[in-house]
Amino acid sequence: MSRENPEVKLLNEVLQKQSPFFYRILSNKGKGCFFPNSGILTQSAEAKGKRINATAGIALDEDQALMHLSSLQKGVNLLPHETSSYAPSQGLLELRELWKEKQNCSFLTSLPLVTCGLTHSLSLVSFLFVDAGDEVVLPDLHWENYRLIFEQRQEAVINTYPLFKESKFNLAGFREAVLNGSSNFNQFSNESNNSNNRHSKNPRKKIIVLNFPHNPTGYSPTEEEARQIVEILREAASAGLDLIVVCDDAYAGFVFQKGIRVSSLFHLLGNCHENILAAKADGASKELYAWGLRVAFLTYACKNSSQASLTVLEEKTAGAIRSSISSCSTLSQNLVVNALKWKKERKIPGRAGEAVGSGEEAGEKAEEEQQLKAILQKRHDLVAALLGKERYHEFFTPLPFNSGYFFCLQLSEKFPHQQDAEAVRKLLLEKYDTGVVALDNYLRIAYSSVSTQNLARLIENIYLACKEVIEKNN
Amino acid sequence: MSRENPEVKLLNEVLQKQSPFFYRILSNKGKGCFFPNSGILTQSAEAKGKRINATAGIALDEDQALMHLSSLQKGVNLLPHETSSYAPSQGLLELRELWKEKQNCSFLTSLPLVTCGLTHSLSLVSFLFVDAGDEVVLPDLHWENYRLIFEQRQEAVINTYPLFKESKFNLAGFREAVLNGSSNFNQFSNESNNSNNRHSKNPRKKIIVLNFPHNPTGYSPTEEEARQIVEILREAASAGLDLIVVCDDAYAGFVFQKGIRVSSLFHLLGNCHENILAAKADGASKELYAWGLRVAFLTYACKNSSQASLTVLEEKTAGAIRSSISSCSTLSQNLVVNALKWKKERKIPGRAGEAVGSGEEAGEKAEEEQQLKAILQKRHDLVAALLGKERYHEFFTPLPFNSGYFFCLQLSEKFPHQQDAEAVRKLLLEKYDTGVVALDNYLRIAYSSVSTQNLARLIENIYLACKEVIEKNN
Repeated sequence: MSRENPEVKLLNEVLQKQSPFFYRILSNKGKGCFFPNSGILTQSAEAKGKRINATAGIALDEDQALMHLSSLQKGVNLLPHETSSYAPSQGLLELRELWKEKQNCSFLTSLPLVTCGLTHSLSLVSFLFVDAGDEVVLPDLHWENYRLIFEQRQEAVINTYPLFKESKFNLAGFREAVLNGSSNFNQFSNESNNSNNRHSKNPRKKIIVLNFPHNPTGYSPTEEEARQIVEILREAASAGLDLIVVCDDAYAGFVFQKGIRVSSLFHLLGNCHENILAAKADGASKELYAWGLRVAFLTYACKNSSQASLTVLEEKTAGAIRSSISSCSTLSQNLVVNALKWKKERKIPGRAGEAVGSGEEAGEKAEEEQQLKAILQKRHDLVAALLGKERYHEFFTPLPFNSGYFFCLQLSEKFPHQQDAEAVRKLLLEKYDTGVVALDNYLRIAYSSVSTQNLARLIENIYLACKEVIEKNN
Repeated sequence: MSRENPEVKLLNEVLQKQSPFFYRILSNKGKGCFFPNSGILTQSAEAKGKRINATAGIALDEDQALMHLSSLQKGVNLLPHETSSYAPSQGLLELRELWKEKQNCSFLTSLPLVTCGLTHSLSLVSFLFVDAGDEVVLPDLHWENYRLIFEQRQEAVINTYPLFKESKFNLAGFREAVLNGSSNFNQFSNESNNSNNRHSKNPRKKIIVLNFPHNPTGYSPTEEEARQIVEILREAASAGLDLIVVCDDAYAGFVFQKGIRVSSLFHLLGNCHENILAAKADGASKELYAWGLRVAFLTYACKNSSQASLTVLEEKTAGAIRSSISSCSTLSQNLVVNALKWKKERKIPGRAGEAVGSGEEAGEKAEEEQQLKAILQKRHDLVAALLGKERYHEFFTPLPFNSGYFFCLQLSEKFPHQQDAEAVRKLLLEKYDTGVVALDNYLRIAYSSVSTQNLARLIENIYLACKEVIEKNN
C-alpha cells in the first residue's frame, strides 16, 4: 500500500517540503506509515457527544454507560469508562499534555505519544526509522532487548564501542563509532557475531542509542561528558551524517552522585542540529514505580523543525501504534494521570535529603517519591562503600556506577573461562540463596530490589561464591 | 542475527525434525525469532524466592514489598505487586491456563499467549508468518486495520473475495480465492489499488483470515456454511497448499439467531489437516466487556502436531512479544483473572433467555454476562424487525447480520456517487445529532452502543438523511 495511498502522500509531501531530513531518515515502512484519518477511529471521534452515536465498537447499556462485569470492575476505584473504554492510539490527550509538562523542554517538541512500555517506544522507533542494513550504534554493554528490537526486528547492523575507558565514559571510542562506525566492526566481533552483514548499507545514516542512567552498569555521564557527547554528535551531523539519536531514559532522575548529569541528554539534543532527530523514550515504569502498568512515551524534537513536520512524525507513530497494538491500556493511563495530577497539585518541600527524617510534620509532607528515592540513594551509598574493601578486588571490581538500579562487577583475570560468571551465578543460587544476573564475565546486581540490611551479605556471598568457583577451577 | 544464534538454531531444529510444515510457513523474521532463555528474564525467573534476589529491574522497599506511589495505587483494590510488577512476556501463567480452560478445545493446542489486544495478536501472526509478497485472503468487507497489519507492516499481497452472494456467505467466491487466489486479482482492484505487486511471491502459502462474528457486517455462518468453509480449506491443504488460518474471534459468543454457529471455527480447524495451522486470536475486550484493558490471546493448533513443535511456536511468539512490547499490563491481566475465577466458582443457571426476567431470585442469580448479552439480543431483534419496513428499502438494505455488534446498510442504486455514504454520514452528524460510520457505499451501525429506545429513531434518521442527500443530488 503506502506510497500511493492519498493519506500517506499527504504526510510525505509535508516532509518533502518542510523537512527533507525527516523524510530521508524514515525507513521504507516509516515512509509508508500513516494514521487512517478517514477511517473508523476518526469517524467515531467526530460522532462523540451526539445524541445517538452508533459508531463505537463498544457496548453501552440502556443508560449509555459502558457495559461492564462487576467481578472485574470491583478491582478498581475508577468508573467503567475510565477503566475499559478505548483510548486513542496516540494515548489520552490529558496524559500526553501532563507528561509534556513534566518533560519541561525549552524547545519545540512533538506531543508525547503514549506507548505500551519502553520496549514499545523503541520498537516504534525501529519500525519507523530503521531499514535492513542501517547502522545502530550501541555501547558494548547494553540491554539485551536492543538486539531483538533493532537487529532481529529490522535487520539493523549493530556497531558497538567499549563503554568505558580507564573507568570513564569512553568518549574517544564513542566518537570513533559515530564518525567512522562499521569500518571498525572486526574489533567487536565477540559481541556481534550473529549478523551476516556487518557493513552499513547506508553509511550516511546512523541510529545512536544513549541510555543514561545505563542498564546494566548504572552509569550516567558527568555534565562535562554529556556536553562532549553532544559535541561529538553535532560534529558528526555537521560532517554530513543523518542522525537519529534515541534517548532511552527509562531510569531518568535516579542519579545518586554530585556532578553527574540528572536531566536527559534529550534536553541538549532536541535543539542541537538540523540533521539530528532526537527521540525520547521514557515512561512511568521506573519514574513512577509502575513497571507492570505498561505506560511509556515517545517524543520527537529537532532543531529548526516545524510544528507541521513534528505532527507528521506523530501521525506516522500513531499509525504504527494502531497496526501493532491499536492502543494502550486506558486504566493504566488513567492511573498515571491521577498520579501526575496529584503531584502537580501538591506543593512539596525541597529535595529528598532535606525532607526525610526532619521531624514528623515535614515527614508527612515529604513527597512519597522522594522518600522512595532516598531509600535507593542510601543503598547506593552503602554499596559504594562496601565495594571499596580491598579483599573483594581479588575477584571482582565494580564498573563505574552512580545512578539507576544496578551496578556490575567485572570478574578479575582469575576467571579466564567464558562460563565463569555463569558458574558463580549458579553457585549463588544453589548454595547461597542469592540471585544475580550473569552477563559475559560480569555480574549485574539490582540493588534496587535488595533491602539495605542485606547488601553486605549479598556482596560477601558473591565473594564466597567466587572463591569457591576458583577453587573448583584449580 | 538469528539463524546462527544457538537459541534460534535449537528451536528451528525441533521444527525441522518434528514439523517441517511449521518451519516452512514461518516468515524469515519468524524463523529468526526466539525468546532469550539464557537472558535476564530467565535468570530472574530462576532467582524467584531466593532470600537475596538482586536480579529484577524493579524497586522493592526495605520489607521487600514493591515500591509504589499511593497516589497511583489508590485507584485499585489490588496489591502493588498485582498491579505493577512485571508479568512474563508470555503472560501470567494463571491467566493463560484459565483462558485455555475457557476455550475448551478437544484437541492439542498451545497454551494461549497473552497479548496487548486483538491487534497485537494479529500483528504477531503477521510478523511471524508473513513475508513480503505472501498472500493474505480477506473478504472484500473487512476491518480496516487488517490492511495496516498485513499490508503495511509485512508487505503482504491482499486478495479479497466478495463476502456475500445472494445474501449468503459466498462459498464459491471463498473457494476461488483460497484455491486460485491472486490469479484473479484484477477483479478486486477497487479494494486493493494500493499495492504495487498483486501477485503472491509464494503461491504455495496462504494466510486466510476468518472473522466471525464479522466486523463490519455482524455476519456469522450457519453450521452448514461453517462445515463447508472448513471443507474448502481441507481441500486446499490436500491439494498441496500451506495454510495459516487466522480465526479473529474478537466477537466470539455474541450470536443472536438460531442455526448460526456459535463456537469458533478454530474448534474445527485446529484438528483438520496437517498443513493447516490454525491461529486463534481472541480476547477479553468484547467477551468480558473490557475493551480498553488490552488483554487478548493467541493460540495455535494443528492436526498431528507435537507438543514440542507447539512449544516452539509459543517461544517464538514470546520472543516477538518481548521485542514489540516486552509484556502486557499486569493489572489488566489480574483483573481478567479475577473475572474468570469468579465465573468459574459460581454455578449459573442455563442460558440468558431462561435466566432473565424469571422471578427475583433467579434474576439475582442470573449471570451478569448473560444479562448484558440479553440486552444486545433484544436490540438485535428490534433492529431486524425495524429494517423489514418496506419504505426503507427504497434507500438501503441491510447486509445479512445475526451476531456481533454491527449491521451494515448498503445504499441503493439511487446513490451512484462514491461519496454518497459519506454525505449521508455528514448530514446525520450535522442535522440529526446521529453518528454512524461510512465505508464505501455502506453505513456501519454499532447497535451495541445505542440504547434500545433510540433504535427506531436512529434508523428513521438514516432514512431521512438519505432522502435529503438524494434531493440535493437531483
